[in-house]
Amino acid sequence: MSKPSYEALVGTLRKTATLKSVADLVSWDQETYMVGGAAEARSDQMSLLAGMLHERQTSSELGDMIAACEEDGEVMGDELQSANVRESRRDFDLETKLPADLVAEAAKVGSQSQEAWKEARAKSEFSLFEPYMEKMLQLTRRKAECYGYAEGGELYDALLNLYEPGATAKQVEAIFAPLRGRLAGLIAELADSSSPPDESPLDISMEQARQHEFGQFVLKTMGFDLGTGRLDTTAHPFCSGIAPGDTRLTTRYGGRFTESLYGTMHEGGHGLYEQGLPKTAFHGLPVSEAVSLGIHESQSRLWENLVGRSEAFWTWAMPHARTMLNSKLKDVSVEHMYRAVNTARPSLIRVEADEATYNLHIMLRFELERAMLVGDLAVKDLPDAWNAKVQEYLGIEVQNDSEGCLQDVHWSFGLMGYFPTYCLGNLYASQFWEALQKDLPNLSDSIAAGEFGGLRGWLQENIHAHGRRYSAAELCQRATGQALSADPMMRHLEETLRPIYGV
Amino acid sequence: MSKPSYEALVGTLRKTATLKSVADLVSWDQETYMVGGAAEARSDQMSLLAGMLHERQTSSELGDMIAACEEDGEVMGDELQSANVRESRRDFDLETKLPADLVAEAAKVGSQSQEAWKEARAKSEFSLFEPYMEKMLQLTRRKAECYGYAEGGELYDALLNLYEPGATAKQVEAIFAPLRGRLAGLIAELADSSSPPDESPLDISMEQARQHEFGQFVLKTMGFDLGTGRLDTTAHPFCSGIAPGDTRLTTRYGGRFTESLYGTMHEGGHGLYEQGLPKTAFHGLPVSEAVSLGIHESQSRLWENLVGRSEAFWTWAMPHARTMLNSKLKDVSVEHMYRAVNTARPSLIRVEADEATYNLHIMLRFELERAMLVGDLAVKDLPDAWNAKVQEYLGIEVQNDSEGCLQDVHWSFGLMGYFPTYCLGNLYASQFWEALQKDLPNLSDSIAAGEFGGLRGWLQENIHAHGRRYSAAELCQRATGQALSADPMMRHLEETLRPIYGV
Repeated sequence: MSKPSYEALVGTLRKTATLKSVADLVSWDQETYMVGGAAEARSDQMSLLAGMLHERQTSSELGDMIAACEEDGEVMGDELQSANVRESRRDFDLETKLPADLVAEAAKVGSQSQEAWKEARAKSEFSLFEPYMEKMLQLTRRKAECYGYAEGGELYDALLNLYEPGATAKQVEAIFAPLRGRLAGLIAELADSSSPPDESPLDISMEQARQHEFGQFVLKTMGFDLGTGRLDTTAHPFCSGIAPGDTRLTTRYGGRFTESLYGTMHEGGHGLYEQGLPKTAFHGLPVSEAVSLGIHESQSRLWENLVGRSEAFWTWAMPHARTMLNSKLKDVSVEHMYRAVNTARPSLIRVEADEATYNLHIMLRFELERAMLVGDLAVKDLPDAWNAKVQEYLGIEVQNDSEGCLQDVHWSFGLMGYFPTYCLGNLYASQFWEALQKDLPNLSDSIAAGEFGGLRGWLQENIHAHGRRYSAAELCQRATGQALSADPMMRHLEETLRPIYGV
Repeated sequence: MSKPSYEALVGTLRKTATLKSVADLVSWDQETYMVGGAAEARSDQMSLLAGMLHERQTSSELGDMIAACEEDGEVMGDELQSANVRESRRDFDLETKLPADLVAEAAKVGSQSQEAWKEARAKSEFSLFEPYMEKMLQLTRRKAECYGYAEGGELYDALLNLYEPGATAKQVEAIFAPLRGRLAGLIAELADSSSPPDESPLDISMEQARQHEFGQFVLKTMGFDLGTGRLDTTAHPFCSGIAPGDTRLTTRYGGRFTESLYGTMHEGGHGLYEQGLPKTAFHGLPVSEAVSLGIHESQSRLWENLVGRSEAFWTWAMPHARTMLNSKLKDVSVEHMYRAVNTARPSLIRVEADEATYNLHIMLRFELERAMLVGDLAVKDLPDAWNAKVQEYLGIEVQNDSEGCLQDVHWSFGLMGYFPTYCLGNLYASQFWEALQKDLPNLSDSIAAGEFGGLRGWLQENIHAHGRRYSAAELCQRATGQALSADPMMRHLEETLRPIYGV
């Protein structure tokens, strides 16, 4: 048999990608249109597909192909091909590092643990969840040990690297630490304001069908292609970049109309990234994939917050909203709406937090999960530690664990190292936004005119088009000329919120 | 290695069934929610899944397992197990009989042929399609030769057997031949009526959302479980029994509301069969699958025509329709509606034909495709032969080939032997209906009261529960005490239509 070639690697990766796209479609259906009675059959389908995928992703044939490419000077001399080989190596190594019995045990215990968490949260009794949290922590540690981390690093890096490749706990800490004080300071300033925004326009009720139509109109104006994507309704909004030409978003209705709208714009930002990745040119190859969760989140947050909460956006959107959503909006000025959607106020639940305080929710989770992982914090002490940090960072008191350390599902199945990417997304978004404004001096005017082509083009060229060709850190450096820093986000929040609150 | 066991066969069949259920879900999505831009990726997904399925269904391991079971006295002595082995043998032999190059050529030419057919139909020019029809006929003949047929039979049997296992062209001819004259006679009688039904109630317009809600209400009352099934909207209605607990129906709106309602009830009948098959008990095994297309169609036709066009049905449905669909129906009596939905009139397009004339459309197709296959009819002579038969059986003239021999897609990709199952479905439905009325003397009263449990129970017990345990012919004999005959349908049509038309 001849030596496996780069073409052979491409062929096998494409087939795997196609199989994965089937699994993604099946998952999408589960969240959107599947009826309850199909749950058991669906679990069989998902487990069959997961098994087939795992087999392909860990096969020795794939390992041999990657190794052969790594020894091929011509392949490694080509920037694009070598990036694909490098990232394939990363994926293959990660996929093959966990022993099968650990994966099976984590899946089994994780499933029990999630049930225990649900009950504990419903009853607000941490003690019901504590033994499972203990087990999941041990399993997560074992996983992290299998993955490993760079010399001089720590166990947390092994997990963080799964979601934000190459990032370390120390780097995150270095960015988060100064941010915490500045954010807490800003929030304290706002709390003293004698003229906070009036949120009453947000409580105007809107028909769901009209909201859906308006959401699609905004998506279309953002540049999201509804000929290669769609918008549906689910309990929890998400974006799935299923396949080339098939990017599916969901949102939910029932709360404030702005909650649904920002849900749609958030997923629309993810969706523009998925539609902007070079999936057709490099189908199934790493360079056609998203580089990190932090960068993915930066795209959603940029559209949700930097665009969607700007005065320019509402200058454009308000006349359409008055016609398409509810004529009562005729009594609401653009400025009134702009102020209302920028309300910032400490609250207990992360997923309901505003743009500013959200980051503090993330920081305390990062600190607590890191401390648990290295053994500085015992599981039994988690509720007290959580409540103390909420008091310290947000200045409010946790009344029970349901609205405290039991509020998020993540830890119940051992998901650690994931939370920081939410905040990194906000930071990347603001840093890209500053660069964007330099490159597109009329950005605000364009947005006010409903012209998003320049913005989308910049994101496409500087972020989307590169896929995994560069690391997230390199991408940030190339797009903004600087390493990631918390300054742009703090500038954005201070410059937006201080005038609104008159402080 | 030990001898493959029956349990091993069950294991491999289940895995194949799960993979097939994934392919069915992907197909369902393609018809319902997939956006146009995903077409190319979808084609990759479908072809990957089809390849994986074919590999599993034709593997020598599977062949060995079946052979081992056939030699196992204990397995073959068990009625259920031996039925599964017998049907697995049938499937395996059919799957392995076509050489790969023939399958590939048929797929390639079939695809070109469908395009040519579309153009020919649009322009109503048979000559554009003729060379492709010629090629597809040759390929279909070659396929039929590979499949083979029983001694004393003919090439057509090899194709018919794919859809109606065990049926032969001679049997079908024996049933169809006397039917033709009786049907044509009845239709001629009706044409002479001086008091045909007034169809005006069918043209009352209804909101789509209300129709959808009413359709779901009717399905639920029929006993279709919306907790293990759903109803969506597509260009062409269908039913897909995707997996245990996952049966999905579609209908369409835009024409008469009764067209949509009967579409829903038709697919609902298919859906009840899928939900009634013992899919949970015998997951993935042949005895959990539908026995033939004719039997499947009998279930849809029974609900659409025997139930849905009965006076008893409208006695129950009319008050609900008045409330849920359109209050204008208050001016329409049950009898008026009953007469309107039983209009019978010769027309050119099969899919728009009424319950009576539909069968004549099928018969002429059966006769023409059988004649082409054995060489008694040249492709170039098809339009003339078609038009002559339409004149003879339906008494109307074909003005152009678009509404003549180019109207159906089937032949364009070589699908022959399939058409008869539509008419067999009607015949089975009427024969089951006569048996049902003997077993449930109060059936009409129950239907008029909206009580469908007895009817559904009879179908469940006599048809659905058996899956492929018996052949369609055996099933008919067991359920009705007689072999299939055209008499029950003719009695049903004559007894329904003569009083309505006053002839």
